[in-house]
Amino acid sequence: MTTGFFGDVQPVRFEGADSTNPLAYRFYNKDEVVAGKRMEDHLRFAVAYWHSFAWPGGDPFGGQTFERPWFTDDMAGARLKADVAFEMFTALDVPFYCFHDADVRPEGQSFTESARRLDEIVDIFARKQEETGVQLLWGTANLFSHRRYMAGAATNPDPDVFAYAAATVKHCIDVTKKLGGANYVLWGGREGYETLLNTDLKRERQQAGRFLSMAVDYAKKIGFTGTILIEPKPQEPTKHQYDYDVATVYGFLKEFGLENEVKVNIEQGHAILAGHSFEHELALAAALGIFGSIDMNRNDYQSGWDTDQFPNNVPEMALAYYEILKAGGFTTGGTNFDAKLRRQSLDAEDLLVAHIGGMDACARGLKAAARMLEDGVLSGFVEERYSRWNSAEGQAILSGQRTLEDVARRVIKDAVDPQPRSGKQEWLENVVNRYV
Amino acid sequence: MTTGFFGDVQPVRFEGADSTNPLAYRFYNKDEVVAGKRMEDHLRFAVAYWHSFAWPGGDPFGGQTFERPWFTDDMAGARLKADVAFEMFTALDVPFYCFHDADVRPEGQSFTESARRLDEIVDIFARKQEETGVQLLWGTANLFSHRRYMAGAATNPDPDVFAYAAATVKHCIDVTKKLGGANYVLWGGREGYETLLNTDLKRERQQAGRFLSMAVDYAKKIGFTGTILIEPKPQEPTKHQYDYDVATVYGFLKEFGLENEVKVNIEQGHAILAGHSFEHELALAAALGIFGSIDMNRNDYQSGWDTDQFPNNVPEMALAYYEILKAGGFTTGGTNFDAKLRRQSLDAEDLLVAHIGGMDACARGLKAAARMLEDGVLSGFVEERYSRWNSAEGQAILSGQRTLEDVARRVIKDAVDPQPRSGKQEWLENVVNRYV
Amino acid sequence: MTTGFFGDVQPVRFEGADSTNPLAYRFYNKDEVVAGKRMEDHLRFAVAYWHSFAWPGGDPFGGQTFERPWFTDDMAGARLKADVAFEMFTALDVPFYCFHDADVRPEGQSFTESARRLDEIVDIFARKQEETGVQLLWGTANLFSHRRYMAGAATNPDPDVFAYAAATVKHCIDVTKKLGGANYVLWGGREGYETLLNTDLKRERQQAGRFLSMAVDYAKKIGFTGTILIEPKPQEPTKHQYDYDVATVYGFLKEFGLENEVKVNIEQGHAILAGHSFEHELALAAALGIFGSIDMNRNDYQSGWDTDQFPNNVPEMALAYYEILKAGGFTTGGTNFDAKLRRQSLDAEDLLVAHIGGMDACARGLKAAARMLEDGVLSGFVEERYSRWNSAEGQAILSGQRTLEDVARRVIKDAVDPQPRSGKQEWLENVVNRYV
Amino acid sequence: MTTGFFGDVQPVRFEGADSTNPLAYRFYNKDEVVAGKRMEDHLRFAVAYWHSFAWPGGDPFGGQTFERPWFTDDMAGARLKADVAFEMFTALDVPFYCFHDADVRPEGQSFTESARRLDEIVDIFARKQEETGVQLLWGTANLFSHRRYMAGAATNPDPDVFAYAAATVKHCIDVTKKLGGANYVLWGGREGYETLLNTDLKRERQQAGRFLSMAVDYAKKIGFTGTILIEPKPQEPTKHQYDYDVATVYGFLKEFGLENEVKVNIEQGHAILAGHSFEHELALAAALGIFGSIDMNRNDYQSGWDTDQFPNNVPEMALAYYEILKAGGFTTGGTNFDAKLRRQSLDAEDLLVAHIGGMDACARGLKAAARMLEDGVLSGFVEERYSRWNSAEGQAILSGQRTLEDVARRVIKDAVDPQPRSGKQEWLENVVNRYV
Repeated sequence: MTTGFFGDVQPVRFEGADSTNPLAYRFYNKDEVVAGKRMEDHLRFAVAYWHSFAWPGGDPFGGQTFERPWFTDDMAGARLKADVAFEMFTALDVPFYCFHDADVRPEGQSFTESARRLDEIVDIFARKQEETGVQLLWGTANLFSHRRYMAGAATNPDPDVFAYAAATVKHCIDVTKKLGGANYVLWGGREGYETLLNTDLKRERQQAGRFLSMAVDYAKKIGFTGTILIEPKPQEPTKHQYDYDVATVYGFLKEFGLENEVKVNIEQGHAILAGHSFEHELALAAALGIFGSIDMNRNDYQSGWDTDQFPNNVPEMALAYYEILKAGGFTTGGTNFDAKLRRQSLDAEDLLVAHIGGMDACARGLKAAARMLEDGVLSGFVEERYSRWNSAEGQAILSGQRTLEDVARRVIKDAVDPQPRSGKQEWLENVVNRYV
Repeated sequence: MTTGFFGDVQPVRFEGADSTNPLAYRFYNKDEVVAGKRMEDHLRFAVAYWHSFAWPGGDPFGGQTFERPWFTDDMAGARLKADVAFEMFTALDVPFYCFHDADVRPEGQSFTESARRLDEIVDIFARKQEETGVQLLWGTANLFSHRRYMAGAATNPDPDVFAYAAATVKHCIDVTKKLGGANYVLWGGREGYETLLNTDLKRERQQAGRFLSMAVDYAKKIGFTGTILIEPKPQEPTKHQYDYDVATVYGFLKEFGLENEVKVNIEQGHAILAGHSFEHELALAAALGIFGSIDMNRNDYQSGWDTDQFPNNVPEMALAYYEILKAGGFTTGGTNFDAKLRRQSLDAEDLLVAHIGGMDACARGLKAAARMLEDGVLSGFVEERYSRWNSAEGQAILSGQRTLEDVARRVIKDAVDPQPRSGKQEWLENVVNRYV
Repeated sequence: MTTGFFGDVQPVRFEGADSTNPLAYRFYNKDEVVAGKRMEDHLRFAVAYWHSFAWPGGDPFGGQTFERPWFTDDMAGARLKADVAFEMFTALDVPFYCFHDADVRPEGQSFTESARRLDEIVDIFARKQEETGVQLLWGTANLFSHRRYMAGAATNPDPDVFAYAAATVKHCIDVTKKLGGANYVLWGGREGYETLLNTDLKRERQQAGRFLSMAVDYAKKIGFTGTILIEPKPQEPTKHQYDYDVATVYGFLKEFGLENEVKVNIEQGHAILAGHSFEHELALAAALGIFGSIDMNRNDYQSGWDTDQFPNNVPEMALAYYEILKAGGFTTGGTNFDAKLRRQSLDAEDLLVAHIGGMDACARGLKAAARMLEDGVLSGFVEERYSRWNSAEGQAILSGQRTLEDVARRVIKDAVDPQPRSGKQEWLENVVNRYV
Repeated sequence: MTTGFFGDVQPVRFEGADSTNPLAYRFYNKDEVVAGKRMEDHLRFAVAYWHSFAWPGGDPFGGQTFERPWFTDDMAGARLKADVAFEMFTALDVPFYCFHDADVRPEGQSFTESARRLDEIVDIFARKQEETGVQLLWGTANLFSHRRYMAGAATNPDPDVFAYAAATVKHCIDVTKKLGGANYVLWGGREGYETLLNTDLKRERQQAGRFLSMAVDYAKKIGFTGTILIEPKPQEPTKHQYDYDVATVYGFLKEFGLENEVKVNIEQGHAILAGHSFEHELALAAALGIFGSIDMNRNDYQSGWDTDQFPNNVPEMALAYYEILKAGGFTTGGTNFDAKLRRQSLDAEDLLVAHIGGMDACARGLKAAARMLEDGVLSGFVEERYSRWNSAEGQAILSGQRTLEDVARRVIKDAVDPQPRSGKQEWLENVVNRYV
């Protein structure tokens, strides 16, 4: 028996590229083997609970547009929401979901009541996971919506807010472990500032470092074997968010000696807001050894706020999966859609259609990326381009056997006069277009 | 005897706020004591050689607009340029200047010839410094204009380009030391990429780390006692520049163990291009212990390229100097104008007028900042805002004596329910307006 | 007897520049004569009802932070809100306020009920206006918050939404007239699109033209003597808003023959979001003969959404009022603060302090602008710069007495070879700094 | 006999989607019929002379990277350049090219000499056109590179600059007519301002209107039957360019009564810099009846300057050609590549490869667009969405038979309460992905 929210929805099946059935996959064929792995195991899709089931469709200029029977702000609504959510996970046949505490249960009158409510829903989740086989990609705590967090959670001027946030994270790690979550994510939604005039940036940085260290220690202590992830974002809601981008998070982790304990969950939309391409953030995280997971929701390049749209531009996605494959693919991470329906997409069916479109686009991107990698045309060019660094002198420089003077002496003695070679950007872009 | 370029220019003098003489200072009064120091010692103004004397006024859509008698691309021109430059330094009565190798001498046919030409000009500079008392704030090497650097200097796929750049930096550190430079700056103009398709980001990062380590070692070895500075910039000329912003540079320094050896030279315009306020970059660098020097040239907030304009918005500048004063002021660093005349500002006088306006605006900013700091209204508010962290429990958390469980237990036991307090942003902004 | 919301607030008085009283004006001295007019008559300040009294402090990542006794969503709350609002208008001694229908009354179950509720509040307003002397700068209709408008009001694919919006505007014009409003404003909050894929841009443009024509006709018919204003904004909430900027609105008005009937209400923040300086939009509107009124709330240049901050940068504001004074100043228009408290500014006092700071900054800007204009240094330069156009030949060209061939013939015959002259931008910027 | 610049280049042929030959077309098959027309006749490709043959590879931080034998600044170089250009046009088998006066001949000592040099090259072009069958899509005058234009051409404060520019345009229209050009383009490279402080915006607008009117009159008089086009751009080189975007140009044309005389040449990169999608600008121009031609070169969304890259994102291009096809396709216009090689793309082959990739991507985009249009799924949805406007009441409103009161009366009488319907954005985006 179902809730009926999606009507008599049938499980979404792969029908091939020629299908025009809006409720079928055209490219995502979970058992198809791509680059040596089943697509499902490569992509590790997850649905985000909050945007799909808790967001009412508001924006800064208008309120709720969605009408969902579970928008009741009580536990009955929360239970109905869980039913509908797992119906959708099953219908889509996705292996994973993600959640915040605040989107699965109504806020209680006290910390204890909120926790108790979360526990009740988590028990439901545990049972449903068992029934459906759907697993938890990651859990997280919402430390930004409630007014107590308006000036930050870990970085709040009030240590009691820090404490409240810490207690919340402890509980969320607990339930994530209980549900077998593959990762635990921290997004510093209010860890940032509105104006330096009322902010002690250095102090707040120390607070944030302490908070993260405590969370990492706790996760270890209780034997949580998932990955701890930070999700970078440059701004919005605050004028300046501390976890600006991958490079910034790396410096922060290094400062507090956490670079081997914590990785990053990279969102395409956040990369764009930070002025980077998504593939830049992925490649950088891989180079720094902190690549973890992705939120595959795009931003409009021309809108300066977080638009959280379902992805659909296959050529861009192919470049993203190309970096992911080069980095060895996901281990504990996966492809989460932290994506909102457009607020005019009112129908239950729109929820399914949006995920199907996003998953299909990811599948196309992955397949294109796999072919790029297998053909080796792109990587071969890059290897050749840097090949002179494989010379004895190149290696001597890189390994620290040459001083500035050594090198300068050689330049003068040999009258070194390097000649530039074409970077072949247009040709490389054309090559990419062979695959997408 | 002068070159006559500036006509019969008289030294620019302080005439007070009511002066309408375009060639007088209205606020910069070098011997006036502000916050316990002479203004000259606080601000440590420097003129940038390249923009003021070597830039022809071109932009991507048009060529040279300035007609300077020294635009001859030979050593006679270079000598005339040096004469005019020191005439301007003297006329403005600035204590410092800065230069790249490429803007003081024409490129030679070989590394050796270029170096010899630089040496000749450096001898002239040394003599002129002695005659005039003007000093060198920093020297640097231009590793971006020549086509050999089109794919990077330290991060080039060709190790010979790395070598050429290394030899150049060695020579520039040598001459900077010879001229008693207070700092040596590295700006990675082409250290970045145009497309990831032809780039090995990880490799390039290693190359950059090696290059910087070699430069630091060399400077130490020869006893250069100035500060080594990196100048962050996010993009332009390349699509992605590695030294994106202060946070990124910090992570890079940490990775290569150089965070105690190298500091940052922060440009207002580059901060803006990176999506930050100038004061953010200053406060962050101070918090991370890597604040060094500034380039006080603004960007147009609405133009997405480097506009390098002379600064003139006093309220913004006051906030910048407020952060600098809070950080203890400059040690080896100073206030450089890496600013271009607008390309329509053709007259010799425009060069003087632009610097005078910029210096006056800095002086106003500094004086306002000093008063803000002395009055203590702003800092008092911030201290009070965080004062609860000074409690025993707050300190216990910060010093690592509390685990996540400890804190969670207290939240539950005490039913902690923190209440938000006003952040008073508008009042703080009004307070700032008392001083500017 | 007061509501007590503001405590025992006293009317805010002018105390002069040295005052540190946060509840006093330091520059706004309403009876002081500037450029031949009382400051109050120049600036014509208005408080915006919605942001100050109806906005709960939410943003896309968090809910209500403000706790106001009138947030009850019933008519009792609406009446209390009106009381508090007029207490604030009186305390601030502002001559004007502005409102939308939706921020003064709770939405009813039907159009008729909503209208009746509005009428009730309008009667209260009328009485309070009489008691206090505060007047209505403009009224407007909220055609964007309710879900019925999610796909536009005038530009909705459903003509019934157009009709509902039209009925709403009719009623709002009626009550604006009743209250003696000096203007009526249309902001096309949802007049735009999210995706061209579901949009017939041409059709929607026709609908918008029709709607505006009907509103203009109606206002004339009932003898509304105020000005009809459109408020341009480029994006947000929708991806593309039709009333993008002043130039776009002008083209729209010309297409429908309304350029003599409708003027613009220009917001600084919207100008910035459109990539323009505020003064550009002002100067352009003046040149096109459609300048009407302003919303003097700034955007953060680095935040890509509408930040609606109280203004505080005096040099920028001086340039804005300089354009306004050059355009002859306000007639029916004025200086509205469509500004939100930061969501952390929780206190009642913050509302007062924010307006006081904004008004003082405007007053300083106005006074600086008046001096710039009186001294004539800036305008004198501009006149001289174009003076050659006053020659016989210049006038002949401009008046259409020369063809392209005439002019070409002269260029060849006289070997015309024009020489560029310095644009003196830095000097002009320094001149501005004399006044601010 | 060829110049040998491209080696023994063979004409580029269509080889089909599976080809990996970098010098073959994979999708552009000129004689293939798409939507009832040969692809060549649909796309009307043109190569831009300036970027391909005259641009040296410089950027604001570095000089020439390309080494071309014709970079000699004399007429011999200009003739060699023409030979190479037509060799490339022929090799690519493009039907059209475009040029500015300044990129085909070196500047002379006087207007007369410059004109004579242009005439000489035009004679060569005429002969080559005859020999090769390649035609001129449009000619234009460069009114922005020379220092005489630093403060504008038509909008210059000096009427002699206006005159010089007018004489230049006259001559360029003459030679465009002589060469049978299908269009004449005006891009206002310096028609804008750097600072309002030295600018009389209203005056400059009048000058621009006069200039355009004179050009239109002259073109008519001499019987030029091509289309006069304005190319919008928002900023760069100047802070504010007058021809900001399509909407702005429309308002300008309306003001001077030229909306039936002049159309727009829309560049994707300029659309992006103005904050618009390319398809927005196309759809708007079509709606306003001023769509003319396109420059199909993209901008990097994250670089705030004009990057002029060859296009390669097929899904984006499909949406652009979809708007073009809906507008009826090109008449005199075409698809010009106003695109620069990346400055590291040094090889002769890169020029060919870049154009081939761009043309192939256009061909894919066109074919996808044609299928979208033929299938009618997208347009069917839109028609249905607005279908209620086809009711009697909808038509009565649109045709002006209803007043605001009429409509309001009906809303009240019928208790109109419109219910929103899903906008189906995600489904529509999925539908687009069926075709690309």
